[in-house]
Amino acid sequence: MPETLPKDSVGIVTPQAQTFAAPVTLDCGQALDQYQLVYETYGELNSDASNAVLVCHALSGHHHAAGYHSMDERKPGWWDSCIGPGKPIDTKRFFVVCPNNIGGCHGSTGPASIDPATGKPYGPDFPVVTVGDWVRTQSLLADRLGIDQWAAVVGGSLGGMQAMQWSMDYPERLRHAVIIASTPRLTAQNIAFNEVARRAITSDQEFHEGRYYEHNTLPRRGLMLARMVGHITYLSDASMGEKFGRELRDQAYKFGYDAEFQVESYLRYQGERFSESFDANTYLLMTRALDYFDPAHEYGGDLAKALAPAKCQFLVLSFSTDWRFAPARSEEMVNAMIAARKPVSYAEIDAPWGHDAFLIPTPRYTEAFTAYMDRVARESGA
Amino acid sequence: MPETLPKDSVGIVTPQAQTFAAPVTLDCGQALDQYQLVYETYGELNSDASNAVLVCHALSGHHHAAGYHSMDERKPGWWDSCIGPGKPIDTKRFFVVCPNNIGGCHGSTGPASIDPATGKPYGPDFPVVTVGDWVRTQSLLADRLGIDQWAAVVGGSLGGMQAMQWSMDYPERLRHAVIIASTPRLTAQNIAFNEVARRAITSDQEFHEGRYYEHNTLPRRGLMLARMVGHITYLSDASMGEKFGRELRDQAYKFGYDAEFQVESYLRYQGERFSESFDANTYLLMTRALDYFDPAHEYGGDLAKALAPAKCQFLVLSFSTDWRFAPARSEEMVNAMIAARKPVSYAEIDAPWGHDAFLIPTPRYTEAFTAYMDRVARESGA
Repeated sequence: MPETLPKDSVGIVTPQAQTFAAPVTLDCGQALDQYQLVYETYGELNSDASNAVLVCHALSGHHHAAGYHSMDERKPGWWDSCIGPGKPIDTKRFFVVCPNNIGGCHGSTGPASIDPATGKPYGPDFPVVTVGDWVRTQSLLADRLGIDQWAAVVGGSLGGMQAMQWSMDYPERLRHAVIIASTPRLTAQNIAFNEVARRAITSDQEFHEGRYYEHNTLPRRGLMLARMVGHITYLSDASMGEKFGRELRDQAYKFGYDAEFQVESYLRYQGERFSESFDANTYLLMTRALDYFDPAHEYGGDLAKALAPAKCQFLVLSFSTDWRFAPARSEEMVNAMIAARKPVSYAEIDAPWGHDAFLIPTPRYTEAFTAYMDRVARESGA
Repeated sequence: MPETLPKDSVGIVTPQAQTFAAPVTLDCGQALDQYQLVYETYGELNSDASNAVLVCHALSGHHHAAGYHSMDERKPGWWDSCIGPGKPIDTKRFFVVCPNNIGGCHGSTGPASIDPATGKPYGPDFPVVTVGDWVRTQSLLADRLGIDQWAAVVGGSLGGMQAMQWSMDYPERLRHAVIIASTPRLTAQNIAFNEVARRAITSDQEFHEGRYYEHNTLPRRGLMLARMVGHITYLSDASMGEKFGRELRDQAYKFGYDAEFQVESYLRYQGERFSESFDANTYLLMTRALDYFDPAHEYGGDLAKALAPAKCQFLVLSFSTDWRFAPARSEEMVNAMIAARKPVSYAEIDAPWGHDAFLIPTPRYTEAFTAYMDRVARESGA
């Protein structure tokens, strides 16, 4: 809750929405007959619409990437550290668009929305969507906003997968793809953690096969566990150690199962808070989109072949202590880009914060990101 | 189910039991008035009882470390790869004792045992036990078996913590401590994973505050989740990748939440099997014993000071891809032993199997372990 807005904030922002009445066919074969996309924009679109940047959100993200919804909001948008006047994605130069993806739970059509065919929430009948589906619906939003070509498509983690997918699916429609803390495909371990999260949700007795809305209940405990296990993978062993170590909440061991170590109460708090604000069906769906993402799959595992259509320039950033999507995964991407003769800049940023580092404005990260976006802006006449 | 027993097997073994009628006071301050320890032995105790080796089990382990209970048993004991004629712990030379620890669920007194005070299972009233409590009760078993001094106390993971605790609590009673894939204390990340496992169990509606025995039910789903998350931490990213990769059970994506990737069905199977054979209250208790283990704690974090009383020689082994208890944790131990001027041999074994490597007889591991135990045997006149 800022008393006055920081100077480098985009300020008070208001979500917008677009409704799409034409059906969109999804990768799973099902169609969505109509849907809404909620999004925020920051900065001004210039006269030739050459300064637009698309920001794609990650698993638990949404359209509120920067600024405040009101002076009462406790925290700004999730990527406020990177979006604003003078920040890496400089809103004095760029027009930034950040949508909530379909399947989400922050206003865009998703499992909690009313299915017009039944008059009830979709729940488990909401189709399983893919990164490709998100990019397709984002391209329809771009049409609606009069943006033929993005100056850049930018995202971290699952957002980075969307940036990569844009480069392959709509090569004419972006000049730069910025892929941060991401991976060209999940490893078995990544999938395993997602599976634990999903099983935690679906085995909660309040889940009711995904129709919990109709039972006036929520699988809170399952979603809490899912978030707890996810949260551990977002942090590094070292950063957890630095933040909590083995610190006890009280002086001595209590020989029981209440939260005794600080890290226990932190995780419980994070899990509880999340379980009150996020939709469990969306969590299932987002983790599945992560699992399925594998652009090399239809090219016999050859990522360079998958990247062949791309026409944009790439920036790839990874973080030294990210063990969820380790630097080695980014290097796979970069090697494939080089093999496909695509222009790519790569930096591994030394940062202690694990996967979460992409949300934290450490100096080297900010510098590298800012320098690249400055080049994008200059090329875009922004 | 072997048709004939392998030549290097200890053969058919029968668990034994000792009942202790004298109360033992535990670290938590509570006492157990009476208790039983179930154990197995392999090999023969020599006339001066100088060839006895104590094997300590880990989180989900028990007294059945080697051989078969019958010709129908599908698999041998959990450490059969390391215990037997000609194996690292050579039963032609050593008399091996492996107890199930108190609090366990394989015959020794634990939460599922009947509390003589109430005539009902202890359940959540079973005291929270520590590594120190296990070592104390193991020492009483040694008394009963006429073993004044172990040739070696040996264990992997949580078992290694017990070996270390022996060296500090009963310095006169062991000549060697062999500490494999272990750590002098859990990190915040380790505790966090344990906390997720515990919350999965305690938030299962069938848990009934730990009194599920009286409700004729079991918190199966919670225990399954606990095991799934544990299992991920026992394997390395690389070994999971090698074993499962992104392999699908069928040809193509099904766009749903059934197990589609091989790693999903493997984890579910492991979790389900475990949840049918292990007691949830024991799982809580074992993870808490792990959390609490921190011998340096009462010495202001100085592990060398904690080790000062030790009189044995140490072998410490770690595995390159173990990220649960990484080689760096073993090195902390070794550095403290050196600072405390204790004789210590250390090897980091290059093995791809993560934490589970301590159960897998890779050549360098077997060689290092065998060479050390051969020295122990020769010194022991075994």
